[in-house]
Amino acid sequence: MTPAQLLEGILQGHPAVQRRAMAKAITLLESTRADHRAQADELLTAMLPHTGRSFRLGISGVPGVGKSTFIETLGLYLIAKGLKVAVLAIDPSSTVSGGSILGDKTRMEHLSVHPNAYIRPSPSSGTLGGVAEKTRESMLVCEAAGYDVVIVETVGVGQSEIAVHGMTDMFCLLQLPNAGDDLQAIKKGVMEIADLVVINKADIDPHAATRAQAQITSSLRLLGMHGNPDHAHHNELQWQPRVVQISALKGDGVEGFWNAVEEFKRLQTNNGKLQLRRERQALAWMWERIDFGLKQAFRHHPHVRELLPQMQSDVAAGRVAASTAARALLAAQDHSV
Amino acid sequence: MTPAQLLEGILQGHPAVQRRAMAKAITLLESTRADHRAQADELLTAMLPHTGRSFRLGISGVPGVGKSTFIETLGLYLIAKGLKVAVLAIDPSSTVSGGSILGDKTRMEHLSVHPNAYIRPSPSSGTLGGVAEKTRESMLVCEAAGYDVVIVETVGVGQSEIAVHGMTDMFCLLQLPNAGDDLQAIKKGVMEIADLVVINKADIDPHAATRAQAQITSSLRLLGMHGNPDHAHHNELQWQPRVVQISALKGDGVEGFWNAVEEFKRLQTNNGKLQLRRERQALAWMWERIDFGLKQAFRHHPHVRELLPQMQSDVAAGRVAASTAARALLAAQDHSV
Repeated sequence: MTPAQLLEGILQGHPAVQRRAMAKAITLLESTRADHRAQADELLTAMLPHTGRSFRLGISGVPGVGKSTFIETLGLYLIAKGLKVAVLAIDPSSTVSGGSILGDKTRMEHLSVHPNAYIRPSPSSGTLGGVAEKTRESMLVCEAAGYDVVIVETVGVGQSEIAVHGMTDMFCLLQLPNAGDDLQAIKKGVMEIADLVVINKADIDPHAATRAQAQITSSLRLLGMHGNPDHAHHNELQWQPRVVQISALKGDGVEGFWNAVEEFKRLQTNNGKLQLRRERQALAWMWERIDFGLKQAFRHHPHVRELLPQMQSDVAAGRVAASTAARALLAAQDHSV
Repeated sequence: MTPAQLLEGILQGHPAVQRRAMAKAITLLESTRADHRAQADELLTAMLPHTGRSFRLGISGVPGVGKSTFIETLGLYLIAKGLKVAVLAIDPSSTVSGGSILGDKTRMEHLSVHPNAYIRPSPSSGTLGGVAEKTRESMLVCEAAGYDVVIVETVGVGQSEIAVHGMTDMFCLLQLPNAGDDLQAIKKGVMEIADLVVINKADIDPHAATRAQAQITSSLRLLGMHGNPDHAHHNELQWQPRVVQISALKGDGVEGFWNAVEEFKRLQTNNGKLQLRRERQALAWMWERIDFGLKQAFRHHPHVRELLPQMQSDVAAGRVAASTAARALLAAQDHSV
């Protein structure tokens, strides 16, 4: 199918045709073949005017926090409200093992078979940057296909949360009601970028959940203290990150969660910050891809490849200063092949 | 003076001659003029065989934690033991304001006039990366001049600590005995890279200091929990970061601090990790400079400069996908000028 035909299927197809077109479009966007890349760019450019109307919700948490159950409960709740829901994943472990947090279709058994839900596992190859790029582009396909909420899921290991934060309108962190957990999140810089912290499995030990809620609320306040330049993000959003309790398994608290999301969305839309966030994300994404491209071209340049092994061993052994080696390698790339 | 003359002065000069040669060498290394850069590379390469015998100690902490007093007390203590001490600074604020944490000569009034101490303020221009590079090279000058301990100081704002950690053998974090302070350090990822945490001003409130020591010790243990992949650093070093109390103003605890440093140094030298750390630092430094050079060449390329403003506004407005724009800009650079 041509890019134009794919787009037509995504925009206007009957459910089965649309799903097929979405899958083919995503496969095309994920392809690394150079000739596919030109078609992919054509599709992306044609698709862009039809994107941007979904709410992009990032959800993260360590393994075992109950992300699948939460997303299934939330997804079914949103479908019952008449919304269409897409779920994508960025799974840094899948880039290593070829497995995926979403590979197991039985994970969200009711949501995955629902006609108003679209679930796509994480691309299983590439670097985190590559996987993130593919997920961003898949997100655009879901938006063009009219999905109202696009959930981007990731596991809690730091870098991937930053990537998800960089492509969503709101970033939610799922936490277990236990103390070490939030310290890890603070350390990885994930707590700091959360717009909403969700304490899951609150039914198991309500006292612990309430303690955790108080503790995280106080940590968020300390992290957001006056005079902390790193906290410009939430000051600028005019939003004080909050902490809610849920029990995804019992379905308790999902409505309260969604009300908080709606409130955030309304505020950010009205004060223009949602638009600004998306513009910055798009520019940051462009520069990220440029950096990646520059490094790749450098490492593959024949003169650099020839010189690099010796330079690396000279620098490691202290025979050549690092900055001298850097200048020599950059000069090698400048000489035409 | 030629690079060879500078080196001779650094290696063999009488005190006054040596100081002058050091100052001239550092000025040359800090210069951004292209013709100076070739001489600087010549000097660096000639100097390298005479470097590496100093112990490189990074010291960081937020403004007001008492870094100057601590470094002065420590420096005089080390000089009394017969050692020569150099103090360099990486001050991210100086890159903006032109000021410097070390600019004020009265800061370390006894140490700064001592013949066995060499104090150099932070380079006052350039990006953090540029300032860090200049400091790394100044460090090599101090090493060639026979300084036994080179202290690299920085203020607590996150990125500059990572830079100092990346150029020293041991990284020490100064903390005040108050709770919000260590949460900030955890958040910025600074606590995690500290080999030693020093609670300063312990005399003001001994109870608070002891509480802080217990709390930070427990945080460090939680941060280093089994199964935390980010904590590979200290596991590999076979070192459990520790927490000591001092009162720099009264001089209490400085010996205990230095004993911990000596223990760390002995362990890391014997298990070969010190050498490994330095090799990795040199390679990481090389790649950092390469990345910087690649980005700079890209931004200054005439075709890129021509295309960039339109591309940026198209991406921000959602008319062109970020990855499409990145590819177009990379292709523009590839076309010869």
